[in-house]
Amino acid sequence: MTIQEIPVSNLDPAKFIEEQADAIRKTVGNIPAINALSGGVDSSAVTLIGHKALGDGLKTYFVENGLMRQGEAERVVALFRDLGVHVQLVDAREEFLGALKGITDPEEKREAVTQTFYKKVFGRLVRETGAKCLLQGTILTDVDETVAGIKRQHNVFEQLGINPEEAFGYKILEPLVQLRKDGVRKVAEALGLPASVYNRMPFPGPALAARIIGEVTPEKLALVRLATVVVEEELAGVKAFQYMAILHEDRMTGMRDGRRDFGRQIEVRCWDSVDARKATPTNLPFSKLTKIAARICRAVPGVVSVTYNIATKPPSTIEAI
Amino acid sequence: MTIQEIPVSNLDPAKFIEEQADAIRKTVGNIPAINALSGGVDSSAVTLIGHKALGDGLKTYFVENGLMRQGEAERVVALFRDLGVHVQLVDAREEFLGALKGITDPEEKREAVTQTFYKKVFGRLVRETGAKCLLQGTILTDVDETVAGIKRQHNVFEQLGINPEEAFGYKILEPLVQLRKDGVRKVAEALGLPASVYNRMPFPGPALAARIIGEVTPEKLALVRLATVVVEEELAGVKAFQYMAILHEDRMTGMRDGRRDFGRQIEVRCWDSVDARKATPTNLPFSKLTKIAARICRAVPGVVSVTYNIATKPPSTIEAI
Repeated sequence: MTIQEIPVSNLDPAKFIEEQADAIRKTVGNIPAINALSGGVDSSAVTLIGHKALGDGLKTYFVENGLMRQGEAERVVALFRDLGVHVQLVDAREEFLGALKGITDPEEKREAVTQTFYKKVFGRLVRETGAKCLLQGTILTDVDETVAGIKRQHNVFEQLGINPEEAFGYKILEPLVQLRKDGVRKVAEALGLPASVYNRMPFPGPALAARIIGEVTPEKLALVRLATVVVEEELAGVKAFQYMAILHEDRMTGMRDGRRDFGRQIEVRCWDSVDARKATPTNLPFSKLTKIAARICRAVPGVVSVTYNIATKPPSTIEAI
Repeated sequence: MTIQEIPVSNLDPAKFIEEQADAIRKTVGNIPAINALSGGVDSSAVTLIGHKALGDGLKTYFVENGLMRQGEAERVVALFRDLGVHVQLVDAREEFLGALKGITDPEEKREAVTQTFYKKVFGRLVRETGAKCLLQGTILTDVDETVAGIKRQHNVFEQLGINPEEAFGYKILEPLVQLRKDGVRKVAEALGLPASVYNRMPFPGPALAARIIGEVTPEKLALVRLATVVVEEELAGVKAFQYMAILHEDRMTGMRDGRRDFGRQIEVRCWDSVDARKATPTNLPFSKLTKIAARICRAVPGVVSVTYNIATKPPSTIEAI
């Protein structure tokens, strides 16, 4: 089935929200439904459309998978509390880290996150709540990239011939699947979400696991999390599509206290893009780049080298994994 | 034995050259001596001081180790032909690539190059020529870094307690060991070397093997050699201490012809420095950086990502290995 794209120029956000809420109400009926909220613009918009449609019939969860950024769970739960939506925290750290153990291949990593998310964690929540439907924020670009074989997005199934009801035991509703990022931002704004959400940078489904080359371990997660704090603080005021810190597996020769130290390298990426299909590196002031590098070398144990991405997408992709 | 540094402010190049030539003449006498010329400022200066001292008593070799840049051997031989010095080409590619096979540790790589160079190749040349002395262009920074345990420079022995006569069967003379790079440049100019030599960027002893993370293979050497051509062409007019392309071992997700391609990453470094002890990344125009990245992605098969170093030395070092 081909998805009919709604270009942002044709989008009437208020009408779109009503139509999607109606469609959800019709499909779900009186049976409980669930959704996962990561705090990104896609899942935040779905959460509010879903609660508009189903009220308390929708249970919203924040899955603490151990792969999130510093303070992320607390921030998201507090924000939605202010919007009148109760978000339940699910501690699934051990399940995700266990599933990722020993895996180095990028696609296997993504698949491990997907399976843990949909089969283990959501399978359990569906059984506990009696839900038959999962609402999620898949957008058209996720489908495109997965179908084209560029990158397996964690939230795309039907287009790969996977029936979620058979594979996981529940139906998946995707109210945003006709939109791209720019359209979702307009919808999120119309839903009354704050600018910090509707203008929020994309963050990948596999979270910080997508920012670690090679095996994902708690130690490496701690390092990339610290580097991410620096990059996000330093670039907070910059008009860019997305920025990130990536922890490399390669070791570099460095020096600490006058002696050799085979250290780690952090790669910083900051992208200009409209819809993530094409992207170019942001022309940041050089003093900003060297400041970021110096802060990362001080703040992140063992890092001796920092680089800035200067290639475009294509042939790069936005994330490294 | 502590080496007495001659700071560039105290250096009288003409007097220095005479003194060193005298010392070489006294030590070598009428027995043949040999030296290896890489084309860098250090070995070029030693070659001319040595020929001044010994005339035809010094045999000069360019060792083609398979790790050099594109066209390097031809360029160096032609330049010294014009200066009246005959340079003999030694094809040692198989020996070096064989010695590097399977080695991924940076220090083991450096050691493999050192042993092949001094023990195998020069051991053989010494036997063939009857030479008892090898002249080489060690400078004080090489000694400092090796002794401090930062980076094992291929040309430092006595300061590590290695007696070259016992280890390799010949004596090593180091006429430049009291100088740093800035002093050597003045001496090279006074020797009548062209600006392309006395202002030439440093290039590491292990050559392109120092620019490959992980195992050195002929395929990877071909890739980093192509990237080096792009970087050196694009930055030829830039006032910088040193610039380079480094081939990473980490694989990155990229896309080619609309499909996923787990590709390679090239890191570009360009350093401002006086004497290599400290260094900062050069503030290159952003348009230059993105042009370099685009050219590398087009010219080097399989490369999908290019970065620019933004960290300082320390905690980085100038080379990645």
